[in-house]
Amino acid sequence: MEQRLSLVTLGVADVPRARAFYERLGWRGQEVEETVFFAAGGVVLVLWGRDKLADDAGIADAHPAAFGGIVLAHNVRSEEEVAQVVAAAEAAGATVTRPPGPTFYGGFAACFADLDGHLWEIAHNPGFAFADDGSIVLPDFGGE
Amino acid sequence: MEQRLSLVTLGVADVPRARAFYERLGWRGQEVEETVFFAAGGVVLVLWGRDKLADDAGIADAHPAAFGGIVLAHNVRSEEEVAQVVAAAEAAGATVTRPPGPTFYGGFAACFADLDGHLWEIAHNPGFAFADDGSIVLPDFGGE
Repeated sequence: MEQRLSLVTLGVADVPRARAFYERLGWRGQEVEETVFFAAGGVVLVLWGRDKLADDAGIADAHPAAFGGIVLAHNVRSEEEVAQVVAAAEAAGATVTRPPGPTFYGGFAACFADLDGHLWEIAHNPGFAFADDGSIVLPDFGGE
Repeated sequence: MEQRLSLVTLGVADVPRARAFYERLGWRGQEVEETVFFAAGGVVLVLWGRDKLADDAGIADAHPAAFGGIVLAHNVRSEEEVAQVVAAAEAAGATVTRPPGPTFYGGFAACFADLDGHLWEIAHNPGFAFADDGSIVLPDFGGE
């Protein structure tokens, strides 16, 4: 298995509503067959009906509002930008689950849940540099 | 908010066990402070204790084994490669939730759950080309 992630699909209750949320944040997607695709750097973020996603993956969806143990992160270049993005998300209908503040690793971050409960951390991490295309550069931590 | 995803963090019960699973699939990570980072194309895949991840995001983890409505996808170049990756994942301890087979969009795919239940779709989608670096190229669907 090559070491890369191709797409991240978020199961949502209402695809147009979920798309509108991300578009209020400035993203632009394309819809095909009730599925919305957003180019998101080296990966594609996809919105699809949660029931279809569960069926497609061959699993049961017993607790539709539960935390699934995944947090998406969007790194930004400054502490100010953390606050700006979180304020924009809240204005677009997100729920702030952790207000902006310092992190244990010496950064500054906040978290919000989108309209379907999917969690985003907006983070300024001085230890992670940005490539020209906005992707982050994983440092050599010197460990193994 | 710029249109990009920086990291995807998977909350896991046992970080060394989860790391060993991905390393059996051929990935190579770096650990720092009980957190493992894998460069995964334009994004970074992170393994971290699920309890810490929930605390950090400011949310409760009421149903630790529940589907959270997110599926990660790893696209490959052929149907044969779908079967190979899924067999390798199963040998590494994954649970196949959907066996390899044709998809409704004209591709060929399978799904597995990793040791913590995080879902991966391994897909051959003839409609999505690969860039030289292995990332997929989102087609212009001609819609909006």
